[in-house]
Amino acid sequence: MSTAEREVASGLLERMRALGRAARAACDELGRVSAEARTKALVAAAAALRESRAEILDANRADVAEARTRGLSAAMIDRLALDEKRIEAMAAGVEAIAALPDPIGRVIAEWERPNGLKIQRVRVPLGVIGIIYESRPNVTADAAALCVRSGNAVILRGGSEAARSNAAIHACLGRALAASGLPETAVQRVPTQDREAVGILLREMTEYLDVVVPRGGKNLIERVQRDARVPVIGHLEGICHTYVHRAADLDMARRVVLNAKMRRTGICGATETLLIDRDCVATHLPAIAADLIAAGCEVRADADALPHASGAKPASPDDFGKEFLDAIIAVKVVDGLDAALEHIRRYGSGHTEAIITDDADAAERFLRELDSAILLHNASTQFADGGEFGMGAEIGIATGRIHARGPVGAEELTSYKYVVRGSGQTRP
Amino acid sequence: MSTAEREVASGLLERMRALGRAARAACDELGRVSAEARTKALVAAAAALRESRAEILDANRADVAEARTRGLSAAMIDRLALDEKRIEAMAAGVEAIAALPDPIGRVIAEWERPNGLKIQRVRVPLGVIGIIYESRPNVTADAAALCVRSGNAVILRGGSEAARSNAAIHACLGRALAASGLPETAVQRVPTQDREAVGILLREMTEYLDVVVPRGGKNLIERVQRDARVPVIGHLEGICHTYVHRAADLDMARRVVLNAKMRRTGICGATETLLIDRDCVATHLPAIAADLIAAGCEVRADADALPHASGAKPASPDDFGKEFLDAIIAVKVVDGLDAALEHIRRYGSGHTEAIITDDADAAERFLRELDSAILLHNASTQFADGGEFGMGAEIGIATGRIHARGPVGAEELTSYKYVVRGSGQTRP
Repeated sequence: MSTAEREVASGLLERMRALGRAARAACDELGRVSAEARTKALVAAAAALRESRAEILDANRADVAEARTRGLSAAMIDRLALDEKRIEAMAAGVEAIAALPDPIGRVIAEWERPNGLKIQRVRVPLGVIGIIYESRPNVTADAAALCVRSGNAVILRGGSEAARSNAAIHACLGRALAASGLPETAVQRVPTQDREAVGILLREMTEYLDVVVPRGGKNLIERVQRDARVPVIGHLEGICHTYVHRAADLDMARRVVLNAKMRRTGICGATETLLIDRDCVATHLPAIAADLIAAGCEVRADADALPHASGAKPASPDDFGKEFLDAIIAVKVVDGLDAALEHIRRYGSGHTEAIITDDADAAERFLRELDSAILLHNASTQFADGGEFGMGAEIGIATGRIHARGPVGAEELTSYKYVVRGSGQTRP
Repeated sequence: MSTAEREVASGLLERMRALGRAARAACDELGRVSAEARTKALVAAAAALRESRAEILDANRADVAEARTRGLSAAMIDRLALDEKRIEAMAAGVEAIAALPDPIGRVIAEWERPNGLKIQRVRVPLGVIGIIYESRPNVTADAAALCVRSGNAVILRGGSEAARSNAAIHACLGRALAASGLPETAVQRVPTQDREAVGILLREMTEYLDVVVPRGGKNLIERVQRDARVPVIGHLEGICHTYVHRAADLDMARRVVLNAKMRRTGICGATETLLIDRDCVATHLPAIAADLIAAGCEVRADADALPHASGAKPASPDDFGKEFLDAIIAVKVVDGLDAALEHIRRYGSGHTEAIITDDADAAERFLRELDSAILLHNASTQFADGGEFGMGAEIGIATGRIHARGPVGAEELTSYKYVVRGSGQTRP
């Protein structure tokens, strides 16, 4: 590194640490104000997004234009592009988070000890949360709103392709916080697209960051999990399975499988592999496969399934345990529940799996013996979503086992402390 | 590195990974058996410790003899040495853990969605836990028992000074598991004192370890937090404060402060700093200081406190924010509650703090506005202990904010999964 480069790098480090210090101070304040004050700021933020839609759309047009000249894929540009409807959805999302119950200060548990000590477990904010994400600019508003709801300060680092859009959205949030008498620095944005900033966030800010949440593709998540010196709440891939058991109702199996795969193919809760019992492959698969193909899905069937799935292609071994995030499904015939469990344990990513069956015992074994974050009986894997769970919103679906698992909403972005009330007790 | 060294290193890596694979298989089995099976194995383990006390004492004598020739401190040798009484306490501790309610499979929360989906949050084991600890051989039994209670497999890495003692204790646990029909590999011990094994545990076993728990001094914890590529539940130092507010009852303040400092000085919940209001320093400090000094405590008082603490020495600025773990206490006069809060925020380690006062409003502000893991009103900081909280046993007091905070018992060594029961629901 040249002297000049070193100076630039140390300048960046100092600027990042300044963000960290400001966030720490802001979270102390944000956790101490009333729930109503946090609600008011969120309502103001929704209004600010609506009022500033012209500025946000201008900024977004510039991002989209640059993305086109840089040759980004149509799918990426679709994720990046905003319109009036998407901005309204963003504002409505912030309002929905404003309407959520405020978790801070809530007593989660309380008990009394034989010596008269009264112990309470009370929810507190996690502190300062770093969020590293890609593409979709609405994450800026969603993530910031969830953090404010749960009393946390947040440092946002979005993708460079959405830099102008994110800056415009972030400006609205800052104005709303300030106008509501809360610290603007409760929601900060890394002010540079310098890639080294991510490294600093992950490695050099342990005293300022309590947790990092990566949202994005596998490469991003893996980099964060490899490099982070702060705790990570990770959202890895969703290799979700739907298992049609021999006692499945055919009509239900058709509706649920079609929805689980095709409602939206790009989300982590979309089913990627269909397992079907040998005992019902001849009766059930033809209609299930026909529905999928009619809806535009490519069906990749193993040798035992292929004869029962007209219009399907042969699956390759690589198709199992693969997250297509597309209108493609792998299909495999299994010899009963144990074989299905074994396949899921081997190929699943611990995200979400469903069994379709009228056999209550088989369903209970599936729910008990598998250990994915979400296990469903007779329902679509597409329900893997904080909103659908009644959490109002989510920052993602955690696939780790530490702290939070499954949908991460405002409540999952909290910690707790113990409050103990005595009358002079000493320990013997 | 020479070729020979590289071969040794790669041999060690392979042996460590074999431990990891065995642990993963064992935890699948351990989490699936009944609570009764885990209880039975723990009862058998307690019996095995009692039956094998001659072997354990022999092994311990050899460890202690080597420690003496290596010139270890008297305090370290005291932590290392076992006798009949300590072995009985260890066995009784394992029995107490066997008597704890089994957390696995318990429904923590359940609710129904408007679409009829029934959602349950169910406790599951964390998976495989690595425990890295120093000196005291009883940690081998305590930590292993807590992990078995919570359905986790554990890989233990104790200090080299206790290697023979730990091996003897571990052998008992393994025999008891096998005799109870559970996998012996649910509790494994790193079979070498090679220091590189710790590095492998922290960095090279991400696919086999779900969390690492370090137990020991500051250097160990910091090394683990710096190097770990797996989540860490850390137990940092306890710089605990007791604050005598101007409305404190003098008699209660004397009893509680004496206990908070002197009951046991070497534990993380021992008070290290006494804060006292200027309004009551003349009335309260003389007796409090006299009690401490009479009990053999060195009192280091700031300039404002010194005239009121006969026999005290002047404190240096370094004495504040220091974990003495010894019969030493720093004393500072503060100008009321806000100054006390500010001092604790600046110098505390977020572990445990107490306020002594008869003023309910002051107490509530202290409990609400501070953010340590444990906050007490009118009780001794020495209550910072899983047993005293009613958890039966603990693996330590977590000072981080992620996953668990405060005493970590069997319940805190679990994760959860969502079980969703439907009747054919699809997502609109």
